[in-house]
Formats: sequence, structure tokens, C-alpha cells
Amino acid sequence: MERVYRYVEEHKDKFLEDLILLCKQPSVSAQGLGLRETAQLLFGMMSDTGISTTILPISGTDCPVLHGELEGESSYTLLFYNHYDVQPAEPLEEWLSPPFDPRIEGDLVFARGVSDNKGNIVARLAAIEAYTAVFGRTPVGIKFLIEGEEEVGSPHLRKFLQDHKELFKADACLWEGSSVNWDGRLNIILGVKGILCVELEATGPETDTHSSWATVVPNPAWRLAWALNTLKSPDERILIDGFYDDVRPPTEAESKAIDGLPLEEEQTRQNDGTSQLLAVAKGREYWRRHLFEPTCNICGMISGYTGAGVKTIVPRVARVKLDFRLVPDQRPEDLLGKLRRHLDRQGFSDVRISDSIEGEPAARTPMDSPFVRQVADTAEEVYGKPPIIMPTMAATGPMAFIREALDTPVADTGVGYPDSRIHAPNENIRVDDFIRGIKHVAAIIHRLGLDAQGK
Amino acid sequence: MERVYRYVEEHKDKFLEDLILLCKQPSVSAQGLGLRETAQLLFGMMSDTGISTTILPISGTDCPVLHGELEGESSYTLLFYNHYDVQPAEPLEEWLSPPFDPRIEGDLVFARGVSDNKGNIVARLAAIEAYTAVFGRTPVGIKFLIEGEEEVGSPHLRKFLQDHKELFKADACLWEGSSVNWDGRLNIILGVKGILCVELEATGPETDTHSSWATVVPNPAWRLAWALNTLKSPDERILIDGFYDDVRPPTEAESKAIDGLPLEEEQTRQNDGTSQLLAVAKGREYWRRHLFEPTCNICGMISGYTGAGVKTIVPRVARVKLDFRLVPDQRPEDLLGKLRRHLDRQGFSDVRISDSIEGEPAARTPMDSPFVRQVADTAEEVYGKPPIIMPTMAATGPMAFIREALDTPVADTGVGYPDSRIHAPNENIRVDDFIRGIKHVAAIIHRLGLDAQGK
Repeated sequence: MERVYRYVEEHKDKFLEDLILLCKQPSVSAQGLGLRETAQLLFGMMSDTGISTTILPISGTDCPVLHGELEGESSYTLLFYNHYDVQPAEPLEEWLSPPFDPRIEGDLVFARGVSDNKGNIVARLAAIEAYTAVFGRTPVGIKFLIEGEEEVGSPHLRKFLQDHKELFKADACLWEGSSVNWDGRLNIILGVKGILCVELEATGPETDTHSSWATVVPNPAWRLAWALNTLKSPDERILIDGFYDDVRPPTEAESKAIDGLPLEEEQTRQNDGTSQLLAVAKGREYWRRHLFEPTCNICGMISGYTGAGVKTIVPRVARVKLDFRLVPDQRPEDLLGKLRRHLDRQGFSDVRISDSIEGEPAARTPMDSPFVRQVADTAEEVYGKPPIIMPTMAATGPMAFIREALDTPVADTGVGYPDSRIHAPNENIRVDDFIRGIKHVAAIIHRLGLDAQGK
Repeated sequence: MERVYRYVEEHKDKFLEDLILLCKQPSVSAQGLGLRETAQLLFGMMSDTGISTTILPISGTDCPVLHGELEGESSYTLLFYNHYDVQPAEPLEEWLSPPFDPRIEGDLVFARGVSDNKGNIVARLAAIEAYTAVFGRTPVGIKFLIEGEEEVGSPHLRKFLQDHKELFKADACLWEGSSVNWDGRLNIILGVKGILCVELEATGPETDTHSSWATVVPNPAWRLAWALNTLKSPDERILIDGFYDDVRPPTEAESKAIDGLPLEEEQTRQNDGTSQLLAVAKGREYWRRHLFEPTCNICGMISGYTGAGVKTIVPRVARVKLDFRLVPDQRPEDLLGKLRRHLDRQGFSDVRISDSIEGEPAARTPMDSPFVRQVADTAEEVYGKPPIIMPTMAATGPMAFIREALDTPVADTGVGYPDSRIHAPNENIRVDDFIRGIKHVAAIIHRLGLDAQGK
């Protein structure tokens, strides 16, 4: 493998150029910006790397999926899941350089999507280029699934995968991209949380009404405040009847895994600028809550007059947006029903649940999957430090759709670091992490080949 | 008095022209629009009616106060409290004709301020004109206090009145303007509620943060939802410690007065377009709650993402605007302290109370004041039906400042009707109510004179 690593070092500038090329092309799914162009650009880059590539239209959207395939020496197949879309770049005024005009400054590369997750796409192509340049061909087969709607919740992916199981059949899947921690240890993440998003709405008088009528006219903002109070108590316990019924307790291996995680309370506090974390999240509870507990979160709420000064009204309407992050085996559609029944039983049948609902279940790959060991061993080799193996992330992605359609183990590795600012202004990666990420992908391919051939 | 009434009938068109002239002149205190011009116009109209008029600057604002004085046959003096400012006309697109281009259509006059309360100013001037035209002079002295900041909470009036007690000294005060009910009975209103407005604010992370962190990062919208829940329960009981301590129970006469009020539940429901009123406001409770109970009302609230679709964040900040309508003898500044102590005791010392606070105490004139009888008797005479005597309105006005500085009884009469749409688009009055309002003011002046002279 030393020859592969040397190839990577020697072609560092070329790989950075590829990265800049891909990041220069805007691809904002939420704004319908540059998606076909990006798919076309990627088609070229993948073909140049020797990968048989197809642009597959996906029913119901203009964002196609890229399918890539490269035959290997063995029938074992590794699937890369990635997405070519990025988050909107706004607020533009907070960027120190234009988000789609990539800038290298010292050890850092700045661009929208450079970490999430174009850096990972380019790193994976670079690893294949380096490996095949040295060894002629890869020891295992490679597939790519690169979608263009990840940042808007992958609304069409579940059905698409059900319809194209054979095309993406694989023995293991490397997820879109994680990061190293501040100590330079790679985070290998084996799962995602699920999500359910709802909007609650209460209505009062037909129009905003003089607040002297608050004596006799129901106030929709009060209705929501009281309804919310029945959903979660100040000690953060979710009170919806049956909410925790299907929560699968962490396995012994998963519980043991979080015991080994470094405490990051203080870093989270500083990163987020909160004066203090939740009292219930102190000490070891930090990781248990963060990874294994579902949430009931208020994303936004609005009612009545919110401008400067005073306007005394009973508002016409009040709305609150909630998201629930779910853990295995909670099911979004089941919890939606439980929420409705809970509100009714608590006397809030007047509070409507809007239709704008997004649902994805959680997914986790077992800690003892051989693939986890293969990814972890190679990480230690490349990064020179033992990786951190996290049973799940606290965020959500379409991993369950992959697990459900293809039944493969999934592990997440990548080129980010704690200050990569994904989804935020001045997204960036460090060049060294990018190079290590390329080497690690090559090392994984090599190790999978050795194991597949029983060496 | 028949000659006075005949004069009013015969000069109906002239009085309507005066009304149109005054309503044509915008005077929006919230927008600083046309206030000096309106004071100047009124100065002319009052002077033309024989009233010695002065425009008095008021410290701290550009909205002067008009002082008017007319000597009478006796030393008894009646004070008219009015305001020349009006509510903003917005939303303009909901007006069927321009708000400051008065339009007479059949029996209705449409214009911003025509009911609240320029119609009353013109009716009072018209009554004086008619009375003096017939009798040469009024039997009692008349004073006018016309301010220009009522619609923004009369922030400078309290001090102004303390500084000018002698100038406005009077034996009784006719308030700015009430209305007849659907049965054509005049509402004579003897009091106002007080008010306290506050904004509560909670803060979370330094910027909106990915909602996967809801596991460990405090959410300010949840903090406010829980804090609100400690302020009022779903049965509408206000839970702030000591909130009801100073509530003076209604007198026997006040309680008896609301027993005589017509039930208006169904009309309120239809007017406000609410599917149903509060369960606690059924039957006789409707009036007791509406007039004698203080409120704790949410005027508005905002936090996080409130646009279309989904954005999963822990919001940076959450704010809620509350208004409390107060009854005698609650004091705004006392309740502000109680609110702070309540939040602290309930574990919400992190919830800040903003500085933008408006406070006015409640005020009531005793039911057995002779002035009430004088106004009521003349109302029955002019309207042909017994008036409705309400111990208080549910809304707020600076009546306490008058009561406190001048120690006079105050009664509210006026030219409105239930569909006058004050503060709303298409504000209007009926010509017949305007004419009856003029006659009633003349009748009050006459009656006060008779009583003053012991006739």
C-alpha cells in the first residue's frame, strides 16, 4: 500500500484541482440550482476514473441519481453512498469568500459542499484512481450511488431503491462522510436517527381581535402553549402516550462504545455558544442522551404580532413546528398517530397537525459486523490513532432506506473535522484530512480484497 | 329642548360636512402623520363654535393637547375628554374606499376615525353650536381636553394632567365615545380596565443550531412554552402568585348592573368568527368575566424557523408578547414585580422580561354618582329606550389619569354602533346615531344646567 499512498501524495495537487472543479459547480437542491449540470460533471469525472457510469432519472423529481460500477478481482462489492447536492449558501454576507468560488488558504479549502460531501466524492474517486494506477484493478467490485436530494430529505430515494435493488446490490456500504475529532481520531459512525416533522396549528377568532376580548374568546397561542406543555416536561421527558414503547435499548456493545467516547460537553457548549447544556445531559449522560434518546424539539413558532412595541390582540392563528429525532425501532407514521391520539385525550382536539410531514426511520449497523472491524483497523493504520466508533450519529440521513433495500452493513467515514461548518457559512476542510481520507478509502478497498480472498 | 333638537335636524348637512372635514385630515399618532395639522384644524372648528381654545405643547412629544373653555351660566363645569389621533388605516387593501376620503353611502359614513372618535368631537361641537344658537349660552361651563396620543397609550398624559390640574378642573367628564347596541339602547360606560404589557424572552445557542443537538442544548422556545404554562392554566385561571390579591370585588350595584345586561355570547361569537367562546364564559359568566376579570393574553410569539416546509433547528431566541388587562385596584408596576418573582420561583430566572412596558391602572366611576343618573335619564329621553349602564368596558383608556388628577365622575357615551369597526378597515357610523349623539350631548348640558340651578 505504500506505493498507493505515495501516488496520493504525488497527485495531491491534481486531486485538489478535481475538488475545486466539483465545488465550483453550484448544486443546491432546495433551490433547484445546477443539479443536472453537476450530475453531468460527475458523470465525466467518474468515467475518467474508469467507472461505468449511468445517469438514472428518478420518478417525481428533476434530480437524477448517478449509478457507478467498477468490476473487481472478487465478487465482493463495496457501495459508496454520496450526494452531489449541497445546502443553500445563504446567508451570503457571512462568507469570507464566495461559496462557489473555492479558495485554498494555508491548510484549508473553503467552499459550500467541500465537506458535505463533495470532498468525500472526490476522495473516493481519487482512492480508486490511485489504487488502479498502482495495482491495475481493484480487488473488490465498487459501486456508487450518488443522489441529488439528500439535503431536502431524500424524498424519492426509498421507492427508487426498492425499484432498483439489483443495481445497487453490495456487501457493504461506506456512508457519505464523517470527520476526525480534535485529537485527530476518525469518527466511524454506524447509524443515524430517524425523523418526524410536524406543524401544529390552532385557530382563534376569524381575524386578529382586540385583546379586551381575551376574557371570552379562545386564544390560539395559549392553546398551543398548553398543548406543548403536555408533550414534554421541563425535565425533558417526552410525555406523549406510548412514545417510548418501541425504543430498542442499546445493545451491550453499543453501551460499551459510548463509555469509550471522549467527553465533549465543554466543546459543545462553546461551539454552540450556550451558557449551559441541559442539566440532564451532564457527565456520561451526555453521550447516552445524544445518541440513544429520541427528541421532541421546537424548530419554530409564530402567532399574532411580533413586531416592535405593543399591539394588543387575540391572534387569529398560532403555529409551531416540531421535529422528533427517532431511534430504532420507532416508526414515524406510528408516532404521528400517537401524537394525534395524545392531543385528543389531553383535550386538544382543536389543535391540528398539518400535512407537511417528513418521516425517516432510524438505522444502525451492528457493532460486531466484520465490516466495522475492517474500516476501524484501516483507520488506525492511516490516521495513526485508534478511531472512535460511534453506534449512531444524532442526526438523520436516508441510511434506513439502504439498510432496508440492500441489507448491507453501513459505516460512515470522511474528510471533515470539528470546525468544518457544514450547512453554515465558510464551510471548509483541511487538506491533510482530505489526503488521509483518500488513503483510508484506498486502505479499506485493499483490506476488503485481502479478506475476500481469505488472505 | 325641542328647538335645539330641531336646529340639529335642520343643520344635519352642515354637521356632516364638519365631520367629513375633520375625517379628511389624517392624524395617525403611531405613524406621526398629520397631528399638528389636525390640532390646527380643530383649533379653527372649536374657535368657530365660540370656544376659547389653546394648543398646549406637551413635554416629550410633538402631539399637542387642545384645551377648550366656554363659560356657562353656572360655575358647574362639564369636561369633554376626546382624542384627535386615530389608529393606522392599514391594511389599506381591505378598505372599500380610501380611509381618509370620507364617503357617505345611504345611512353610513365611512372613514378612519369617524367612530373613534372624530364623530364624537364633531357631535359635541355641534351640540354646543345648536344649544347656543337657541339659548344664547350654555347653562354650565364646558371644557375640552383633546389629546393626540390616545391610540399609542397616552404616554405623556398622566404627567401633563398632574401639571395642569387647574386648567381642566371640572365637575364631571364625558368620555370619548361609546355606542348603541343592536337594540338601539345607548351603552353608558363608567370605567376602563388597566393594562400591563410585557415581552418575555429566552435565549438558547448563540446561533440557530442543527436540531440533532436538541438532546443536550436548551431550546428557548421550550423554555417559554413551559414558563407560559406556569402563568395561566387551561381553565383560564391566572397562576402568578399574588395576581388576584388587589382585585377589588365588584360592588353590589356593579354586580346588579351586569345582571341587567343583554346576553351577547352569540353576537360576540359571530362578530369575532370564533367557533366557540371560552367554556368558562358561558351564560351570566360572560359579562362577569368580560367586565370584572383581569386577563393574561398572548398578543404574539415568535421563535426559530416559521417559513414554509421544514428547517430543523434549535432556535437562538424565543419571544412572547403578553398583555394583562387589569381591574381595580391592581397596579401595573406591582404586577410586574410579582411576575418576575413568580418566574424566578418557578425556575425560569433565565426568562427575561423586556423593558418595553406600558402600564395604566383601571378606573371606575361609582354607579350611584348623580352624573350617571343625569346621563342615563337624558339618554332614555333622546334614544327612546332605557340605556345600558356598564360599570366598565373591557378595554383600556387613560381614564385613571383623569380620575386621579381631577377627581370627577366619568361617563362614556357616543355615536358608534356594534358594526362601527373601530381600529379595523371600513370604520363607519350611522348618520342617525350621529344625530342622536348630538342631541344627547345637548340634553346632558341642559339637564346639568337644570340640576346646577336646583330646578
